[in-house]
Amino acid sequence: MARARQLLRWLPASDWLARYTRQDAAGDGLAAIIVTILLVPQGLAYALLAGMPPETGLYASMLPLVIYGLFGTSNTLSVGPAALTSLITASAAGTIANGDPTLFIQAAIGMGLLSGLFLILMAALRLGWLTNLLSHPVIIGFVSGCAILIAGSQLKHLLGITASGDNALQLACSLVEHLGSTHGLTLVISLVAIVCLLIPKKLAGPLKRTALPNWLAAFIGKSGPIVAVLVTTLLSLGLSLEQRGLAIVGAIPQGLPQPTLPSLDSSHWQLLITPALLLAFIGFVESISLAQALAAKRRERISPNRELFGLGLANVASGLSGSFAVTGSFSRTTVSYEAGARTPMTGLLAGIGIALVALFFTGGFYALPLATLAAIIVVGILPLIELGELRHLWQYSRPDCLAMAVTLLGVLLINVQSGLLIGIALSVALFLWRTSQPHVAEVGQVPGTQHFRNVDRHEVEVAATILSIRVDESLWFGNARPLEDLLYDRAMARPAVRHVVLMCSAINHLDASAVESLESLNARLDAAGVQLHLSEVKGPVMDRLNRTELISQLSGQVFLSHYQAMQALKDNR
Amino acid sequence: MARARQLLRWLPASDWLARYTRQDAAGDGLAAIIVTILLVPQGLAYALLAGMPPETGLYASMLPLVIYGLFGTSNTLSVGPAALTSLITASAAGTIANGDPTLFIQAAIGMGLLSGLFLILMAALRLGWLTNLLSHPVIIGFVSGCAILIAGSQLKHLLGITASGDNALQLACSLVEHLGSTHGLTLVISLVAIVCLLIPKKLAGPLKRTALPNWLAAFIGKSGPIVAVLVTTLLSLGLSLEQRGLAIVGAIPQGLPQPTLPSLDSSHWQLLITPALLLAFIGFVESISLAQALAAKRRERISPNRELFGLGLANVASGLSGSFAVTGSFSRTTVSYEAGARTPMTGLLAGIGIALVALFFTGGFYALPLATLAAIIVVGILPLIELGELRHLWQYSRPDCLAMAVTLLGVLLINVQSGLLIGIALSVALFLWRTSQPHVAEVGQVPGTQHFRNVDRHEVEVAATILSIRVDESLWFGNARPLEDLLYDRAMARPAVRHVVLMCSAINHLDASAVESLESLNARLDAAGVQLHLSEVKGPVMDRLNRTELISQLSGQVFLSHYQAMQALKDNR
Repeated sequence: MARARQLLRWLPASDWLARYTRQDAAGDGLAAIIVTILLVPQGLAYALLAGMPPETGLYASMLPLVIYGLFGTSNTLSVGPAALTSLITASAAGTIANGDPTLFIQAAIGMGLLSGLFLILMAALRLGWLTNLLSHPVIIGFVSGCAILIAGSQLKHLLGITASGDNALQLACSLVEHLGSTHGLTLVISLVAIVCLLIPKKLAGPLKRTALPNWLAAFIGKSGPIVAVLVTTLLSLGLSLEQRGLAIVGAIPQGLPQPTLPSLDSSHWQLLITPALLLAFIGFVESISLAQALAAKRRERISPNRELFGLGLANVASGLSGSFAVTGSFSRTTVSYEAGARTPMTGLLAGIGIALVALFFTGGFYALPLATLAAIIVVGILPLIELGELRHLWQYSRPDCLAMAVTLLGVLLINVQSGLLIGIALSVALFLWRTSQPHVAEVGQVPGTQHFRNVDRHEVEVAATILSIRVDESLWFGNARPLEDLLYDRAMARPAVRHVVLMCSAINHLDASAVESLESLNARLDAAGVQLHLSEVKGPVMDRLNRTELISQLSGQVFLSHYQAMQALKDNR
Repeated sequence: MARARQLLRWLPASDWLARYTRQDAAGDGLAAIIVTILLVPQGLAYALLAGMPPETGLYASMLPLVIYGLFGTSNTLSVGPAALTSLITASAAGTIANGDPTLFIQAAIGMGLLSGLFLILMAALRLGWLTNLLSHPVIIGFVSGCAILIAGSQLKHLLGITASGDNALQLACSLVEHLGSTHGLTLVISLVAIVCLLIPKKLAGPLKRTALPNWLAAFIGKSGPIVAVLVTTLLSLGLSLEQRGLAIVGAIPQGLPQPTLPSLDSSHWQLLITPALLLAFIGFVESISLAQALAAKRRERISPNRELFGLGLANVASGLSGSFAVTGSFSRTTVSYEAGARTPMTGLLAGIGIALVALFFTGGFYALPLATLAAIIVVGILPLIELGELRHLWQYSRPDCLAMAVTLLGVLLINVQSGLLIGIALSVALFLWRTSQPHVAEVGQVPGTQHFRNVDRHEVEVAATILSIRVDESLWFGNARPLEDLLYDRAMARPAVRHVVLMCSAINHLDASAVESLESLNARLDAAGVQLHLSEVKGPVMDRLNRTELISQLSGQVFLSHYQAMQALKDNR
């Protein structure tokens, strides 16, 4: 019984379904219809971006949504195909396939499946904290770089030319080279689509201030893709533009996906491990930050580990449907939220809606121009390019600025995965460097009080035979040895000094290397005729120090307060 | 002129030579004679351990000592062949050579040369702090593992059998397999050598308490290798043991080394990069900790960056002499210290002494049994095996214990380099994990004071509408997001809460990700109708925060002290 209840913890649907009301159904139903309508052109567009057949964009929007509806904890998150994960899929599958189109599709499917398994594994091992290693500057650099790459990769569809390249430079050169052969008709359709996309966006603000219900204003604001699809498809169909050289989606197989496993050999699976891990990381960070931001508005709560699990299952479901990786989508999620989605039922219903589209309406997208899909991608992705953040970071913190710049350049000039990995490694190294150089202050007594402050910043009294030092950082192996030298050198620089008192009020933790360094400092000072004392050691730190030999070897004493240390040592020189 | 003086900073000899006295000369001269006598058998033994021809052990003890004497900053450090660096040389060169003896020698020479260049580069880029990434548990695990491997690798020489293996397990199996063919005469010579080595060691303590001068007592204590060499060489020579199957050193080419460059192609140089970096790291850590410990006893000072430079030049000199990597040797350095070495002149004179030996006395070592050299290595290395430290670390800190155990097993079961790299990676990961989970305390007012302490540990007063939280760690990308969630969840768990006050007294640094998380926390709390306030922000942190948008967006206020915050918020609910 207890076991069954524990298992049900991993199926949040069991919880909200029990309390499901008619109001919930009304809110979820409306939101589901709107999300479904948005999802169709987005699914097709992200399939194009991922380099996959258009129907896989629909497949990724069925079973994964249903599964996430049952296992996810966010009431509003709309899972499905998204820009970043599609780009990573295209980039990594392209590297592995090396020009073989069948292998490309299998690799893309395998990568999504594997990233789902990694997410489930991370949930089981409670490794959600690992995603914290993605610092904010690295994420901004990565997203901006990816957005530039995505926009660049879609330009060929907007212009009706061919262009390709392994990185931003090659792509730019290739675009410039082929610019002369721009297809005029395609460019016109692209401009029409872009206008259709931008007008509703511009309307969103003014509409919100009218008497229209909020959900309708939000839907109209996000309806650009649908308008663009309708207008350009009708143009393409009515004027038979296909025969005049316009690239269109073409026939999409009707029906539901057959459950399948990707056919890859073990060497290919090995190559997929790194990109699948990245997909899992990026997908999770994107989903969780979105879900948390919206949950906060309703004072709701989401559980990161169960989110990992739900997103992992959704990706496995996508892989088994023969499609690519999914994650939370920003644009659909905000619409779903504004439309009044109340439970994960919204996603579940939207998945069923897409299934109906795939069963009965795929024919309607035959004449849809590829240029329209490219325009949807480009207009959606451009706001994610935040190069201005480089200037902000430069003002706030040079290391953070460096981490962002290196990640951005890595993504643009090498590739998506390498850029991210280099960024993570650099930001960790910069953090280690900083924390290995802690702030150290000599302190003195504020006259007439029992307080001790930095001698460089305050008018304080010091005793000639006593050196009082405060270290503003926990001691660990990265800073233990340099601190040992620094404290020793400071003591040696003042020949009158007979006592060094280390004020430990800011030391929250001492690892074994730090204990070793304190022992060594104690011995070195002792050899030079100087006693080492500790003061204001925190309770938990003292408990652990009592288990070492340092306390028995210490040439000096451990004082409860720094004031007591001064009183005792002043008298006893 | 200023430039010339700056260049002279890198030649510390210019400094101490100017003040050189007759007393200095007397102390240095005696110490040099003793070090030379010790160095001959040690050089031959470490050449055996490194898998190199015996004369290279002498070559590594000439020019490198002279160069270090001119460029090093330690007055007592005895640079030359040493156990750990010889083992790393043997292990890495063995992997690269893959059975080719000529390539083995060239790889070993190239590795030392390259590690010297890395050390010089590290000095130029002031990268000495990088060696701090070697935590104490990793070093102990690494040294213990290496010592076990070294002792194991010499057993075949002690027993007169053949045995080999890529790791400790294979070596142990191979030894057991060949144990039956132990050569009795070799075993007897080994036992004689071991007795000769141990007796002076045992005498050292009692002798120190007699009227003998300290330097003589110390020398007798360390004279084991010389006694062993003399006794077993005379036995080997007198009884013609070579003809009865005893393995001996054989003919050593007379004369000085010819300056030479290793003949390796670029693919081999590439393979040498990682082991050379490790050699540089380990050699530097060994040298610097030894030099610092002894400098402390005399209130002297050594400069880590100039030490890097001096040790780097010594290694380049060793490579150009056709020999392997050198570093500070523990046993010789302590003898040199006890014998009264006063300046680096000691090493310089010892290098000249070894050159005289190589010119005139190599013939004397013809009949020296290899078993004696193996015994010197094993008896010297056994005290470095500190498996008991595992138990100590287990008591003090489980993560530190894990880091040591993994390093030890990595060295024994995979190989020397992999063990060290795995250990470094694991200890950094454990550190990142710990600092991403900081101590967070809800604080309340100690009645009748303006002090605020942890509500779980003290009897304090709290206001129902105010949540006061203290975070005991700087905020960085590794802990920013989890802290954001934790603070948000704590606030949401108490529906009466209208104000969250973050007490920043222990926050020494805020990176850009942390600012982003605070902005996000502020927005999430604001959406839930809760204000976020900051109190006791340190001066430098506040300076940086003023450059961000957080302060203008903050729903609450920034208070100088936590007490002021409480006073203001209690009245204004």
